[in-house]
Amino acid sequence: MINAETIGSLGENESLKRTISRLNLATSALVGPGDDCAVISAPDGRFVVTTDTLIEGHDFRLDWSSAFDLGWKAVATNIADVAAMGAVPTSLVVAVAAPASTEIAWLEAFADGLRSACENLAPGCGVVGGDLASAEQIMISVTAHGDLQGREPVLRSGAKVGDIVAVAGTLGRAACGLALLASGNNDAINAYDDWVNVQRRPEPPIQAGVEAANAGATAMLDISDGLARDAARIAKASNVTIQINPSMLQGFEAVLELAGQAIEADPKTWVVGGGEDHSLLATFSPTATIPRNFKPIGTVIQAGDSAVLLGTQPLNELGWDSVRGA
Amino acid sequence: MINAETIGSLGENESLKRTISRLNLATSALVGPGDDCAVISAPDGRFVVTTDTLIEGHDFRLDWSSAFDLGWKAVATNIADVAAMGAVPTSLVVAVAAPASTEIAWLEAFADGLRSACENLAPGCGVVGGDLASAEQIMISVTAHGDLQGREPVLRSGAKVGDIVAVAGTLGRAACGLALLASGNNDAINAYDDWVNVQRRPEPPIQAGVEAANAGATAMLDISDGLARDAARIAKASNVTIQINPSMLQGFEAVLELAGQAIEADPKTWVVGGGEDHSLLATFSPTATIPRNFKPIGTVIQAGDSAVLLGTQPLNELGWDSVRGA
Repeated sequence: MINAETIGSLGENESLKRTISRLNLATSALVGPGDDCAVISAPDGRFVVTTDTLIEGHDFRLDWSSAFDLGWKAVATNIADVAAMGAVPTSLVVAVAAPASTEIAWLEAFADGLRSACENLAPGCGVVGGDLASAEQIMISVTAHGDLQGREPVLRSGAKVGDIVAVAGTLGRAACGLALLASGNNDAINAYDDWVNVQRRPEPPIQAGVEAANAGATAMLDISDGLARDAARIAKASNVTIQINPSMLQGFEAVLELAGQAIEADPKTWVVGGGEDHSLLATFSPTATIPRNFKPIGTVIQAGDSAVLLGTQPLNELGWDSVRGA
Repeated sequence: MINAETIGSLGENESLKRTISRLNLATSALVGPGDDCAVISAPDGRFVVTTDTLIEGHDFRLDWSSAFDLGWKAVATNIADVAAMGAVPTSLVVAVAAPASTEIAWLEAFADGLRSACENLAPGCGVVGGDLASAEQIMISVTAHGDLQGREPVLRSGAKVGDIVAVAGTLGRAACGLALLASGNNDAINAYDDWVNVQRRPEPPIQAGVEAANAGATAMLDISDGLARDAARIAKASNVTIQINPSMLQGFEAVLELAGQAIEADPKTWVVGGGEDHSLLATFSPTATIPRNFKPIGTVIQAGDSAVLLGTQPLNELGWDSVRGA
């Protein structure tokens, strides 16, 4: 493309203006983007806040994810953390660093992804502020806020012996999608593009977070680093062991069976170790009515040598470390 | 150093644990770091939020700023935006991306800088969440929150013809410090290390933000990109012209005179174009009692061809663009 407009040629102000104009307004924003701060309504008298970063070459590859995908994913990964507290996502601030040579069209498509994820996953939530800077690689840092609507936050530390362990959303699909992309097997990528799309544009079950809180979930988190690792986080915070029933994972594995065969991989690894579906893992009292979006996968037992058991076998904490990269 | 522990060798969880243990707790944190989200008190029923990013090689150089300096600066630059709304800074989330080879000691010193800036500039404010990721260059992205305590937010758009324009804090010192560092003149750097230290660890007059709001400031912002550029932001948002009285800038210039001579630079450029002191620029009704921390530097007049006049001369929007780099 000749003389394509870049964020460097337009400068920060004009680039931000073009980007912001593509965003939806958060219904909670009393003062939106453009001043020193946004002002956000917090009728509950509290708000929840979380932050997460996506780094080019570590968390994504530009040849695997479009700008739209990345905008979507940046929203989805963060609001899943909000949902995991039992809160409703209300507002986001987004910091982007990118090479000055980045075309403004890329940034605009990124903004479209932000807006679309908000509209689809958490209507009413929107971007209320941002920052644009120059860097050698693309870095996307999002902070998300949510409203508890009077509910108590659901922490990781409340799981009790006897509780039922349940998951809302999918397991292993994003990891399967990543393995497909990494295989370079284009036939397989095309045949199983549904799973590739979960990797690119995850759809965490945001509303299920509120449902779980209302049903009295004793502990909850979003599975960002894999079932094994994230179940261990609840187990350690609650001083219990989580025993996962392997037969209850079969449904999650079965749908990935053919994709696994196509690239000679074992779907079990994806289901137990893959995190980027950003599903919700929660524990419920055995007397609770578990919301329909949650599928039981195990039980909480007394703390033993292992934080997590798969059947009777200790489950290694397979999963993702964002610094080590494995 | 042999076998120094790095964030890569320790991994994200252990590195974060060591860092968080050095931080002060925010008094507003109902749930602190360690869960999916922090839970922050917002007794006002609203909160203000802003985000800003520091990028290695663009916003700082590791040979000019220590890890402690960068932690301090990341806090100071963000809470200045909170103060500029008339709010009290309450909580921060901090995302850091750094090479896996970064020593944990660097991250710990960075955390010390975060804590020290909170304790010194905004007691009670603290870091409530964070994220650590691997990247080729260091990137620090901070989101800051504040409490309006029932006050109306002071926007950029409220300046009225006849208002007095005033500044709380210093002008040009951080730019002078940067010029000294860039000069490579070690004698001058040592002789004027006070100004170098303003560049490294700015001390925005946080409390003056609340004072201005209580005094009925009609508009306010923090000067992050230079007096010329930031005054123009108030002027444009308020549809007025800001006329700065050059004689009222003389005090700001005089203290930088000798440093300017030492490296053959003109302090006027620093005072008008330098932004990183993060001082507060506000407008007040002529009948208002201007808080003692604010020094009048001009008046608001009817919108003319130029957003900002220095005396009768149009003032070009000298200043910093974080994408273009100039």
